[in-house]
Amino acid sequence: MVAVNDANTKHMFDNRYGTGQSTLDGVIRATNVLLAGKVLVVAGYGYCGKGVASRARGLGAQVVVTEIDPLAALEAAMDGFRVEPMAEAAREGDIFITVTGNRDVIREEHFKVMKDGAILANSGHFDIEIDLPSLAALAASGPRQVRPMVDEYVVEGAGGDSARVAVIAEGRLVNLSAAEGHPASVMDMSFANQALSVEWLVKSREQLKPQVYTVPAEIDASVAKLKLEGMGISIDTLTREQEEYLSSWTVGTR
Amino acid sequence: MVAVNDANTKHMFDNRYGTGQSTLDGVIRATNVLLAGKVLVVAGYGYCGKGVASRARGLGAQVVVTEIDPLAALEAAMDGFRVEPMAEAAREGDIFITVTGNRDVIREEHFKVMKDGAILANSGHFDIEIDLPSLAALAASGPRQVRPMVDEYVVEGAGGDSARVAVIAEGRLVNLSAAEGHPASVMDMSFANQALSVEWLVKSREQLKPQVYTVPAEIDASVAKLKLEGMGISIDTLTREQEEYLSSWTVGTR
Amino acid sequence: MVAVNDANTKHMFDNRYGTGQSTLDGVIRATNVLLAGKVLVVAGYGYCGKGVASRARGLGAQVVVTEIDPLAALEAAMDGFRVEPMAEAAREGDIFITVTGNRDVIREEHFKVMKDGAILANSGHFDIEIDLPSLAALAASGPRQVRPMVDEYVVEGAGGDSARVAVIAEGRLVNLSAAEGHPASVMDMSFANQALSVEWLVKSREQLKPQVYTVPAEIDASVAKLKLEGMGISIDTLTREQEEYLSSWTVGTR
Amino acid sequence: MVAVNDANTKHMFDNRYGTGQSTLDGVIRATNVLLAGKVLVVAGYGYCGKGVASRARGLGAQVVVTEIDPLAALEAAMDGFRVEPMAEAAREGDIFITVTGNRDVIREEHFKVMKDGAILANSGHFDIEIDLPSLAALAASGPRQVRPMVDEYVVEGAGGDSARVAVIAEGRLVNLSAAEGHPASVMDMSFANQALSVEWLVKSREQLKPQVYTVPAEIDASVAKLKLEGMGISIDTLTREQEEYLSSWTVGTR
Repeated sequence: MVAVNDANTKHMFDNRYGTGQSTLDGVIRATNVLLAGKVLVVAGYGYCGKGVASRARGLGAQVVVTEIDPLAALEAAMDGFRVEPMAEAAREGDIFITVTGNRDVIREEHFKVMKDGAILANSGHFDIEIDLPSLAALAASGPRQVRPMVDEYVVEGAGGDSARVAVIAEGRLVNLSAAEGHPASVMDMSFANQALSVEWLVKSREQLKPQVYTVPAEIDASVAKLKLEGMGISIDTLTREQEEYLSSWTVGTR
Repeated sequence: MVAVNDANTKHMFDNRYGTGQSTLDGVIRATNVLLAGKVLVVAGYGYCGKGVASRARGLGAQVVVTEIDPLAALEAAMDGFRVEPMAEAAREGDIFITVTGNRDVIREEHFKVMKDGAILANSGHFDIEIDLPSLAALAASGPRQVRPMVDEYVVEGAGGDSARVAVIAEGRLVNLSAAEGHPASVMDMSFANQALSVEWLVKSREQLKPQVYTVPAEIDASVAKLKLEGMGISIDTLTREQEEYLSSWTVGTR
Repeated sequence: MVAVNDANTKHMFDNRYGTGQSTLDGVIRATNVLLAGKVLVVAGYGYCGKGVASRARGLGAQVVVTEIDPLAALEAAMDGFRVEPMAEAAREGDIFITVTGNRDVIREEHFKVMKDGAILANSGHFDIEIDLPSLAALAASGPRQVRPMVDEYVVEGAGGDSARVAVIAEGRLVNLSAAEGHPASVMDMSFANQALSVEWLVKSREQLKPQVYTVPAEIDASVAKLKLEGMGISIDTLTREQEEYLSSWTVGTR
Repeated sequence: MVAVNDANTKHMFDNRYGTGQSTLDGVIRATNVLLAGKVLVVAGYGYCGKGVASRARGLGAQVVVTEIDPLAALEAAMDGFRVEPMAEAAREGDIFITVTGNRDVIREEHFKVMKDGAILANSGHFDIEIDLPSLAALAASGPRQVRPMVDEYVVEGAGGDSARVAVIAEGRLVNLSAAEGHPASVMDMSFANQALSVEWLVKSREQLKPQVYTVPAEIDASVAKLKLEGMGISIDTLTREQEEYLSSWTVGTR
């Protein structure tokens, strides 16, 4: 078995650039909301979260990132994003997007403090990132479909005021549900990895043991090369002196 | 008559943030193209062009700007965009968006040098920014609908090779044709200006002459204030000392 | 007299791109602080403030904008910045930059709530934007020079804890005091406007009255053209059909 | 021995955010050049190159990336940068920054086609990234010091015209030579890794063999946690249900 998802030309591109654009595309198609000036909360700062955060900022949103991993949180902060626990972000967000691979990332304690008009979407693995059963239990009314793919719940606040909370596509993957999924020009790399890995499996079947293999580096590099070619981009090649230099230790600062 | 389109809370917001997002939304809905890594040519760097260029960069495109006005061209260059005549940009672009208010911005000489797969859309006033009659006359085949809203023409190059050129929505406004137009949260300001200006016209009808008036500054400012309030944003107010300072000339560097 | 500062090729470039870079250059030279991950508060969102805010975000800071004008505040919010009154921003900022043209923009009530290590700089007209006399009166100790150009004050908080607050260049223009002022490639336009305006004054002296004139549009445009040429940038020119179209009302959507 | 440079809290931060800012700081201090509107060529798109490219774009430059690795080249393109071989970039660049770890990245063939006024700096390992001996041999005159840290060479072009090429700090690390190196707030993480790794070496000396160890993951994570704390940033922690979910395979889309 080959772990195709771990190929660099897969997860670094499909997850980041594909998910980044198609997630916001799904949110916009479902709601026609203007991102400029909105507080957009991204839960999770892995490759997918990085893609969503970067594209949301690029569309004029003020992005807040939530994380459980200190290293990813630090990276988000250094990239210029506000980093907060979800308990705080829940009070501030206009739009929430979960991309964590975990469950209940947005849950009862968070629904209770949301602003009127909050929009929730998931672009992570499963439809359990937003705890919808607890939202349904909490809500005074809803789900009520207000646009195709958009369900509204009304949550009563502690002070007697109430907030309308909209959930896109029942918390399922918003880019697949409300948009067209990843564009062809990023899936081509993922599919090339799959096809070439299957070919490699067949050709190497005599030598392989029953285990999970990583995609061979040559396949990964060859996918990158073909893609650059397809984009009409040329790059540099090493001179002989440079190759020698890189394989030696003899030269330093003059 | 009141020139509502000239109100600051109209043209600075609707034209820039509204057109910026909705134009790319239209392009993506029509084609599902990934903007990351694409060369996107924006013709015109007025408020609309600024919006489109900024959002396209935010989605990962490499943006080229064409202009006829030196000042706008210089601003685009200082904003970090590559500025070129259309004759050059036509050879490099993957996606072209016209937002000029002029005609024939992309015309025969440009179609002839385009790359295979080029995508053309208009987000300016009329459907004459892209000279479609000359494209139809030039093309060996087409228009052929390849997706809803997308027509493909095949243009034969000088060297015998041919390029497929796709036009979205027959060159009509791409954000209205292929997306939902501006989001409500930017049109609200435009409509507020219209409603308040009509009210002002009626109330002031005794004093007004038959001419074109600009939107009264108080209306413009009041729309901005209401919008901030609606977004939950507070701002500072002048202290008495600051008001005095601003209306005097007596204080400078100590 | 000619109001050279109002020429487009002056205030749109010098104030925005010049001040944007040179202000942060001054802050970095004075303190060697890393902007990535810092909360940077910009007071004022005019051309100078836009420049500083945009460049600070580009260097990885999380930018907060304060304003007194609703329209400018709205623009800042739509550009993706957090907008707050200074009373709130004062609690959150790591770095503060005033570019308002007003006085006492940061004053006693703000100093009192600042975080330990806050850095203050002014890039607006005079050294009165930061109310230093009140900081000196409030401080338990200071000013103490901790680096060249940097004075530290210690402010005792309400809870008994104390915060060190650093002021760069005694609140004088930070880009002139701690850096080299605007780069030549933006001052060239300002000086060209001045020189050409003086020439125009002399040549037109018979026709001019004793009043303030705006820079003639031809001078402004010619400065932009020369600058583009100097940057090696070509732009489009109108075809005869386009010129006709722009001066008529006869053609619309087909 | 511990490979401290490979710790995530070192190379992901120091190399990217530290080098990104301090490299441009060095270029600006040495030359006072305005980055807005300039074509800035970054050779190498590793962590350092990513940092420099991102910050240069943030300061308004039009960034071109050169690479020898297809994967890095593709990432640069998807991040919105123009990717070209150095032979092309050399003709277009106003400013060149090498961050490759290789030698002769800019060499005779490149010097020959540069524009008048080109500025060269190195922020990679050694002073051999720019092939200065060949520049000196090629030049009709120079090096002539035109500002502190800046040497000008005059290169005669094929057509008889000549170009002035400026080299900063003799091609040595520009951030150390012409600026103050990395800011404290990024070196703190690198030094914390070093100190904690030395402590770990001493404490674990009985169990260790003579080999190169990676920094223990706990040290890396603890540095990230301490840094977040120092920045006043809180993050989420897993609930018990979330921990269970992450360690099981039983739940998927409902």
